[in-house]
Amino acid sequence: MAYGINGRILRVDLTQASVNTEFFDDNLYRLYPGGKALAGYLLLRELPPGTDALAPENLLVIANGLLTGAPISASTRFTVAARSPLTGAYGESEAGGFWGPELKMAGYEAIVVSGRAKQPVYISINDDKVELRDARELWGREPEEVQAAIRHELGDKRIRVLQIGIGGENLVRYAALTNELRHFNGRTGMGAVMGSKNLKAIAVRGTGRYLDSAHDAKPIVDLGRALGKRVKEHPQAWDLQVKGTPALVGAFNAAGILPTRNFRQGVFEGADNLKWEAYEKELLTARGTCYACAVRCKREVKVDDRYQVSDAYGGPEYETVEGFGGYCGVGDLQAVAKANELCNRYTLDTISTSVTIAFAMECFEHGLIGLKETDGLDLRFGNAAAMLQAVDLIARREGIGNLLAEGSKRAAEVIGGGAHLFAMQVKGQELPMHDPRGKVSVGLGYAIGEHGADHLYSIHDTLVANPDSIGFKGASPLGVEALPAQQLGSAKARNYAILENWCSFGQVVGLCYFGPAPRSFTQIEEVLTAVRAATGWAMTLADLLQIGERATNLTRAFNVRNGFSRKEDTLPERLFQPLENGPMAGTLISKPEFERTMDELYRLKGWDSKTTVPTRDRLRDLDIEWVADLLGV
Amino acid sequence: MAYGINGRILRVDLTQASVNTEFFDDNLYRLYPGGKALAGYLLLRELPPGTDALAPENLLVIANGLLTGAPISASTRFTVAARSPLTGAYGESEAGGFWGPELKMAGYEAIVVSGRAKQPVYISINDDKVELRDARELWGREPEEVQAAIRHELGDKRIRVLQIGIGGENLVRYAALTNELRHFNGRTGMGAVMGSKNLKAIAVRGTGRYLDSAHDAKPIVDLGRALGKRVKEHPQAWDLQVKGTPALVGAFNAAGILPTRNFRQGVFEGADNLKWEAYEKELLTARGTCYACAVRCKREVKVDDRYQVSDAYGGPEYETVEGFGGYCGVGDLQAVAKANELCNRYTLDTISTSVTIAFAMECFEHGLIGLKETDGLDLRFGNAAAMLQAVDLIARREGIGNLLAEGSKRAAEVIGGGAHLFAMQVKGQELPMHDPRGKVSVGLGYAIGEHGADHLYSIHDTLVANPDSIGFKGASPLGVEALPAQQLGSAKARNYAILENWCSFGQVVGLCYFGPAPRSFTQIEEVLTAVRAATGWAMTLADLLQIGERATNLTRAFNVRNGFSRKEDTLPERLFQPLENGPMAGTLISKPEFERTMDELYRLKGWDSKTTVPTRDRLRDLDIEWVADLLGV
Repeated sequence: MAYGINGRILRVDLTQASVNTEFFDDNLYRLYPGGKALAGYLLLRELPPGTDALAPENLLVIANGLLTGAPISASTRFTVAARSPLTGAYGESEAGGFWGPELKMAGYEAIVVSGRAKQPVYISINDDKVELRDARELWGREPEEVQAAIRHELGDKRIRVLQIGIGGENLVRYAALTNELRHFNGRTGMGAVMGSKNLKAIAVRGTGRYLDSAHDAKPIVDLGRALGKRVKEHPQAWDLQVKGTPALVGAFNAAGILPTRNFRQGVFEGADNLKWEAYEKELLTARGTCYACAVRCKREVKVDDRYQVSDAYGGPEYETVEGFGGYCGVGDLQAVAKANELCNRYTLDTISTSVTIAFAMECFEHGLIGLKETDGLDLRFGNAAAMLQAVDLIARREGIGNLLAEGSKRAAEVIGGGAHLFAMQVKGQELPMHDPRGKVSVGLGYAIGEHGADHLYSIHDTLVANPDSIGFKGASPLGVEALPAQQLGSAKARNYAILENWCSFGQVVGLCYFGPAPRSFTQIEEVLTAVRAATGWAMTLADLLQIGERATNLTRAFNVRNGFSRKEDTLPERLFQPLENGPMAGTLISKPEFERTMDELYRLKGWDSKTTVPTRDRLRDLDIEWVADLLGV
Repeated sequence: MAYGINGRILRVDLTQASVNTEFFDDNLYRLYPGGKALAGYLLLRELPPGTDALAPENLLVIANGLLTGAPISASTRFTVAARSPLTGAYGESEAGGFWGPELKMAGYEAIVVSGRAKQPVYISINDDKVELRDARELWGREPEEVQAAIRHELGDKRIRVLQIGIGGENLVRYAALTNELRHFNGRTGMGAVMGSKNLKAIAVRGTGRYLDSAHDAKPIVDLGRALGKRVKEHPQAWDLQVKGTPALVGAFNAAGILPTRNFRQGVFEGADNLKWEAYEKELLTARGTCYACAVRCKREVKVDDRYQVSDAYGGPEYETVEGFGGYCGVGDLQAVAKANELCNRYTLDTISTSVTIAFAMECFEHGLIGLKETDGLDLRFGNAAAMLQAVDLIARREGIGNLLAEGSKRAAEVIGGGAHLFAMQVKGQELPMHDPRGKVSVGLGYAIGEHGADHLYSIHDTLVANPDSIGFKGASPLGVEALPAQQLGSAKARNYAILENWCSFGQVVGLCYFGPAPRSFTQIEEVLTAVRAATGWAMTLADLLQIGERATNLTRAFNVRNGFSRKEDTLPERLFQPLENGPMAGTLISKPEFERTMDELYRLKGWDSKTTVPTRDRLRDLDIEWVADLLGV
C-alpha cells in the first residue's frame, strides 16, 4: 500500500442502508490520486448526465488527497463533490481542519454516498467499523449541539464530526458543510446535497498513522520539522499567523480593488472599520489552526458588545469580512462577525450568502423588489440589521429568504426587469471578493472554472510573480518578472494554464494554498519530495502538473455531458464596465481581449474553442482516452 | 553578469582578419543560454538559407553552455555548429574535455567565425587579448605536434588547443575537431567547415573563475563536493569509471542488438575479442577524465604488439570499438585501437568513418565496387588491414578514399546500382552503434534529429525507465515502469518528446549525459539547483524543458529554411527489415507503426506533420514568435 493508511473507498447507499468497502487498484490511484481527480473520476463514470442535484440519484463524493494527513503544514484538505444544486455543473469544495486527516487515519481515501435515507441518519466510522445511525433527534439542531451529542452517544470525545446545519437541511442551494465547527466546505452547495440525502453528519475516528503507510517516512518527518521551524523566519507565513487572511481588506482597499457594493466600486469608505487593526481590537480571542499546520492562519473570535458572537464557530476570513462588509456597504466589524457566526451556525457559504444579499440590496435600491417582497425589510446597502435578518431568512427559507436561498442567478430570473445584471455570478455561483479588473488571472479562473466563480480554482499570478514564488511563470523568459496584473493576452493565458494545473494538483492531493503557493512557505520541490516519499513513485514536477491537468479534464468532461459549453465560460457584464471609484477608477476588462485570451487558453488546454470539449489527442496525452470514448470525440 | 565569467561573444571574420567582441543582452541569454540554443539562434538569424557549407559564407559557431566550466561533474561540454557539409542541414557536435571550460575562464560564451583566411591561421585567445596568428607551418601537421608548437610559440604550457588534423584540412565531410588530443567534436563534419576557413586551431588561456560570476557559489561548490564523494557509491557511475563505455559491447551482444556487418546482424561472433575484459588486457594504460568530472569515463591506451598505437590520442569509446569491430566484421581489438588512433590523429569522426567503410565493404561484397575502384584493396568484411588502409585513404582523399570522404550517401549516389540500400544514414549522416530495432526511441531520435542520425540527440528510454532514472517517463502513469523497448505508438512518442527536450536542454547548458542522464549520477533536481545558483533565475524543471524545446525549434526552423521536410525524417530501409541472427533475429521496425508514431510526435511538438514547420502557436508558446515571421507561418 503506497498511499494512505489502508487505501479504501467506502460506499454508503442510504436508500438501501448498506455499507460496502472497496479497495483501490494501484494503477487507478496513480492516475487519480485523490481529491478532485478521484471525485471527478467517480462522478464522470457513475453519475448519469442530467441527474437532478437534489435527487437521491446524485452522488456525494468525499475524497481525501494523497497528502491529506501527512504531518506537514498545509496537508489537511479533503474534497466534497457532487453535481451542484447551485450550478448544475460539477460541484466541489475543499476544507481543511481535522476531519480529512482523521478519515485517512481510519483507512479511507474516499466515501461515496448514494441514495436518500428514509429519515435523518448519520454515518459513524471507527476504523473498520462503519454504521448508519439514527439522526432524527439531531435534525434541526445546531452544529455545536450536534457535535457534542454525537461524541456523547458514541462515548469518544476525540471523534471528528462533519455535518450540516439547517441551511443544508433546508436545501439552500449554497449550503456548506462544517467540521469541528470552524472549517467549511463552503462552495457549490454540497451541504444541500447532503441535506437532500437526509444525512446529517459523518463522524470519524481513526487510529492509523500516515507515516506507517509511507514509502519512506523520514523525508516527510524532516519536512514537517523544517516547516515548523521556518514559519517565524518566513515573512508571508508569519504574517498569515499574526494577521490571517483579514489583512487583505486594507491592502486591497489601498490598491483600489476591494469589491464594494456589488462590484461597483473598488474602494470602501468604511474600510478602516474592517481592517486588521480593528479585527484584532474588536474580535480576536485566539489563533487557530488545522491538523499539523505551522502556519496557523485561522482566527478565533468572541463578541459581547453591540452584537453577541459565540466563540464556537471561528472568526471570519477575508472573504467574509469583506462580503458582509464593504460588499454590502456595512462598515461594522461586529455585525460582520455576527453574519459570519450565523452562516457558520446554519452552514451557509458566506460568499454566496453575502453576494446574494448584496444582489438583493441592489435590486431593492433599483426598485426591482420592494418592502412588500421583503416583508418590510429595508434592504439597502449599509443596513447591517437587515443584512443579518436576511441571513436568517435564507437559512430558514422564509419570506424573501426562500427566493434568495436559490442563489442570485435563479433569484434574478424570478425578479426579472434586468435583475440579472446585478447577479454577480458565473455558472450560477457567486463571485468571491477578488476583482478581476485588478487581477485578470483570477477572472480567467472565475470564467473557466468548472464549478463557477471560485477564487480557489486558480491562484493569482500577481502573487506568483514574486521572486519567492512557485516560479510557474510560464509566459515570460524573465523568470522572476511579473506580467502586469491587468494585462490579458497570450502570455497571460500561458501563465494561467500552468498555474491552473498546479492549483488543480493541490486540490487532488489535499494541499492548502498557504503551503506551496502562492507565498511558497513550502517550496514546490518539497512538495515533490513529499509525494515521492509518500508513494515511492519516481515522479517529477511535470508529472504533478499532469495530475492537475488530468483532473481538470475529467471535471470539464462532466460539465460538457451536462450541457455546458463556452457560453457559460464568461464573466458578469459588470466586470466589462469601469470601476466607479478609487485609484483604479475607470478600469475595466476589455471584452474582445478577454475572448482572445480565452481562445488562447482553450488552445493551450487542447479543448475545442466553441464546445470546450477536450480533444481525443489531449485526453490520450493525459492517459484518459476512455473519456474521449465517453464524449464521443 | 549572471552567467559565465564575462558574457561575451567573440566575432572573428577571417576574410577581413578582424576580431570584435559583443556583449550579450541578458534577456537574450535567458532565452538562449548557450550551446545548441545560442548556436541555433545565431545560425538561424545570420546564415542565409542555401549557403554552401564549405563556402566562406558559412558561419562556424563555437558555443559554451550556461553550466560549462562549473566545477561539478559533467559540466564540461561545448558545441561547434554550422551548416553541415555532410547533411546540408543544421550541423552540430559537442565535446567535453578542457577547452570549453578554458574558454569560459577567458570570458567568452561563444565564438562566431566567418569568412576564409587567405592562408592558414590560428586564433589565440588569452583573456581579453585575441589574435589571428600564422599557421602555415602547422598546416598538414599532426595534432600532437601542433599542440606542442602552439604552446611553445605562445610560451605557455597551460594553453588549451582546439584543432583540426588533415581530415579537416582535406575537407572530409565528416571531419572532426579535437581538443587536448583526446576529446572530439565528432559529428556532422564541423572539422571540414573549420578547414574550409583555413583555420587550423583555436588556442585558449583564461584566468577567470566560474564561481566568481555565479549568483550563489555555495550550492555549486557543495554539489561538486557531493558528486565527488558519490561516485564510489553509485554503481552505474562507478562502472563507467572502472570500465567506461566499451563495456557496452558485451551487454549489447548478449542482448542481440550489437550492430554487426552494416546492421544486418545483432550478434557478432568475434565479440569476445572486443569486450571489456579484452580491452583491459590488451589496450588499457590509464583512466582519463574531463574538467572537474568525478566520473572519469575516459580510457587511455597504448599498444606495442601486432599494431603500434600511440598513447597520445586516447582510447576508443564503445562507438569506435564496435564501429571498427563487429560492424566491419573485425574481431581484433588492436586493429580497432589503431583505427581509432588514426581517426583521432587525422580528426575523422570514428562513427561516420567506420560506417562508411562498412558501406564500402558491403558494396564490395556485392560487386558494386571492385578491386579496380579500390586500387587492389580487398575491402571485405573482416579485413582489418584493408579497413585501416581505407581510413588512411579517406583522410588523404586518395583513391577510393576520395569518394568515401564524401560520406556514404553521396558515395552511394556515385556508385549506383542499389548501393543506397547499404548506406546506413539519415539526412546523410551515418548511424551510430545502437540498433533501433532494439531501441526504438533511439530510432525516433535518428529520424527526427536535425543533424541526422546521432545517438546523443536523445537518450535511450530503455535506460531512462530504470527506477533510478530521471523520471521523465511521460507516457505511463506508472512512474518507474518501462515501456517495452521495441514498442512504438503514442505512449512512446510522448516519452520521446519529453526526453528529447531534456536532452536538448543538456546540449544547451553544456551537460554530458553521464551526469544527469541516463544513469542519474546527478539528480535532475541538482541540475536545477546548479542553474538557479549560477544565475539567480527562479526557474523550474518545466522551464528547463522549455529551454530544450525552444532550441530544437530553432534548429528545425533552420532545416526547414534549407529545404528539409518530413521525407528526410526517416530511417534506412534496412531497419524495416528483420535482424538476421541472435536472440533478436526476425525483429524489425514496422513501417506503418513508425509513421504513426512520427505523426504523434509532430503533433506533440506542434509541428505540421507534412512540412514539419513549427506552428506559430507553438513558437509563441516558446517565446520565439519571431521565428514564425521568419518562416512565414
